[in-house]
Amino acid sequence: MRAPLIAEGLGTCLLVCTVIGSGIMAEDLANGNTAVALLGNTAATGAMLYLLITIFGPLSGAHFNPVVTLLLGERKNWVPFIAVQLIGAVAGAVLAHAMFGLDLIQVGLKPRTGIGQWIGEGVATFGLILTIMLGSRYKPEQVPALVAMWIVAGYWFTSSTSFSNPAVTIARGFTDSFAGIRMIDAPGFIIAQFAGAFAAKFVASHLLSSQE
Amino acid sequence: MRAPLIAEGLGTCLLVCTVIGSGIMAEDLANGNTAVALLGNTAATGAMLYLLITIFGPLSGAHFNPVVTLLLGERKNWVPFIAVQLIGAVAGAVLAHAMFGLDLIQVGLKPRTGIGQWIGEGVATFGLILTIMLGSRYKPEQVPALVAMWIVAGYWFTSSTSFSNPAVTIARGFTDSFAGIRMIDAPGFIIAQFAGAFAAKFVASHLLSSQE
Amino acid sequence: MRAPLIAEGLGTCLLVCTVIGSGIMAEDLANGNTAVALLGNTAATGAMLYLLITIFGPLSGAHFNPVVTLLLGERKNWVPFIAVQLIGAVAGAVLAHAMFGLDLIQVGLKPRTGIGQWIGEGVATFGLILTIMLGSRYKPEQVPALVAMWIVAGYWFTSSTSFSNPAVTIARGFTDSFAGIRMIDAPGFIIAQFAGAFAAKFVASHLLSSQE
Amino acid sequence: MRAPLIAEGLGTCLLVCTVIGSGIMAEDLANGNTAVALLGNTAATGAMLYLLITIFGPLSGAHFNPVVTLLLGERKNWVPFIAVQLIGAVAGAVLAHAMFGLDLIQVGLKPRTGIGQWIGEGVATFGLILTIMLGSRYKPEQVPALVAMWIVAGYWFTSSTSFSNPAVTIARGFTDSFAGIRMIDAPGFIIAQFAGAFAAKFVASHLLSSQE
Repeated sequence: MRAPLIAEGLGTCLLVCTVIGSGIMAEDLANGNTAVALLGNTAATGAMLYLLITIFGPLSGAHFNPVVTLLLGERKNWVPFIAVQLIGAVAGAVLAHAMFGLDLIQVGLKPRTGIGQWIGEGVATFGLILTIMLGSRYKPEQVPALVAMWIVAGYWFTSSTSFSNPAVTIARGFTDSFAGIRMIDAPGFIIAQFAGAFAAKFVASHLLSSQE
Repeated sequence: MRAPLIAEGLGTCLLVCTVIGSGIMAEDLANGNTAVALLGNTAATGAMLYLLITIFGPLSGAHFNPVVTLLLGERKNWVPFIAVQLIGAVAGAVLAHAMFGLDLIQVGLKPRTGIGQWIGEGVATFGLILTIMLGSRYKPEQVPALVAMWIVAGYWFTSSTSFSNPAVTIARGFTDSFAGIRMIDAPGFIIAQFAGAFAAKFVASHLLSSQE
Repeated sequence: MRAPLIAEGLGTCLLVCTVIGSGIMAEDLANGNTAVALLGNTAATGAMLYLLITIFGPLSGAHFNPVVTLLLGERKNWVPFIAVQLIGAVAGAVLAHAMFGLDLIQVGLKPRTGIGQWIGEGVATFGLILTIMLGSRYKPEQVPALVAMWIVAGYWFTSSTSFSNPAVTIARGFTDSFAGIRMIDAPGFIIAQFAGAFAAKFVASHLLSSQE
Repeated sequence: MRAPLIAEGLGTCLLVCTVIGSGIMAEDLANGNTAVALLGNTAATGAMLYLLITIFGPLSGAHFNPVVTLLLGERKNWVPFIAVQLIGAVAGAVLAHAMFGLDLIQVGLKPRTGIGQWIGEGVATFGLILTIMLGSRYKPEQVPALVAMWIVAGYWFTSSTSFSNPAVTIARGFTDSFAGIRMIDAPGFIIAQFAGAFAAKFVASHLLSSQE
């Protein structure tokens, strides 16, 4: 198997495993104080994003996200890239469940819907794409830290807690834990993610072209 | 619209949206433990400041703050800069409210006044300007992280939680959430901010000139 | 005594002292909210790993871990390296107990066993070795931060909280505090650690060779 | 007044103000959960140390600590350096009290004594000096972050919470808040700090000379 596909699949797997696993751990330990649980979830996810983008970036570009692959990647490779992202993401959910002794495949039951949350996902993905596009131009070596910081902030300031990734969204539909989402709510999130991403591409392109 | 103005407006919008949005999220989840809420608020704000200054710095200087524009910016552009900062800041409050399904424009009711808090704002803005001036001279590439760290510390050690920005102060007068301020208390904060900033400019100029 | 051996022994001592000491402090203060205790434990361990690998790396390579020495180190020095790692690790437990006025040597009583936790240790050590191997190739100067971030995430997303180090595992068998482990459970952890490490070496070697 | 003395005085003032101020804020908000208070205290202190050493390092070396000045500084300037450190430290306590509307000068009442805590201070200052000496040789540009990370870890893993600074210790004797210390306990802490510092200088000198 080619190295870029392994990198995308393994990276997305570890990312989803971190999001779901740290949510399970945090909820187990937090005695109902959800803000404390979210702090643990935030620390783990931010740390893992910085790490994964740093070590897999030179191999695959470290997208781990179909929105990034479709909007910012090279055209020709997108089908296998997105396929391994989806497979990796679901495998990450299964791995998290296996570690914590839970049913390997679950059905997400947490409702996440409504205009407020869709705006949240739109803002979250707008900022993610804006960060990648401007960061890649001005400070390419800081992109791993910048993406991690966007998600650290997004976990707290967006009403949807910043899924901002269709592969991760689908995988979170297969867990009924802290990080889960009702599968019927996933399409709304994914549409909002693409809307935010296209808006960001438009704005960032305008900003970058004005400087040339 | 010129790129620097878009960058200032969008950056200030995202900054205020983060401050207010993470405050709403944190208070919702923290079961009354305000210290936990402030930890979430701190993580989000610090991460976002580092990010926004890094990606918008090359476009506009990334002031997001009338004090910075007036004391440290170039003279000629300050009117449109401050205008877009104010518009962006209020838009950030509206956006945060929209994400969380709240009234879009609110009236801040949290009293923040008194000599102690004014000293807090003076210290907060003194340190912000000192950090920018010395950091820009000695470690310009670290200024985004330095500013973020000043505010991370300031959220905890200053009695006012370090607004240190008139545009953000005014925008926080339009929310009745964790980050809000009674609008009648805003002028006291803003006066203290300018006092601290002028003191910092005096001290930093003396320190820097002594080395030339 | 040769500097590399002092560095390995002192570094492993300070690492274990941090893991156990911060666990004692955190549990003392957290009023039963284990998630808050784990946040303190995470901050201390992440900070210390970054520091120790940075300052001792030039002296010894900063393994502090028999798995790293055996799989990634040079062949000839492994016996004294692992000996000082084990001595340093146990000394770190003793030092932590001395600081907090506890019995210097204790018997770990916390059960940590079962397939879920073994998968956790396997994943934890897989990721640690993968991070070191890819990080050393692509971003050698960031390896201290990358290793710290892997463990920060691993404290939260792996069911075993990422011991991922046989010397640390054995030393944690000598404490009956937050970070302790029942000594009879140590061999299962250590076997899982080596399994994960070998898998990582295989995967990382494949990824790296595909790029040559 | 010469710039290095202003830098040392102002830096020590802001450091102590952060330690004490964030302790007051954290205890006010934490509803008795001391671990949460210590998290806020840790975040503020770590952020401020990184910042102050970065911006004042080029002006004065950024000691803020008589132990550092005496053991690692140049011989000739130590009297005025230590004088401004002590004055700045006490001024920082006064400033923190002023911000929070408390009596400007207080008498510390929190007992901090006993062999365990003295070992804690010895370890804390040993590590601080070791970090500065090895860090300055191998990664001088990372010393501000390294020192911050040592204290972040030390707040949690040392039984004394790592004062590791005689000027800060004395200043904390003038506050009866979270960060306070009974003044009669200060000498024990300071003796332990010097003992740890001398041990670190011996070890680090040996390690560094073995590489020449």
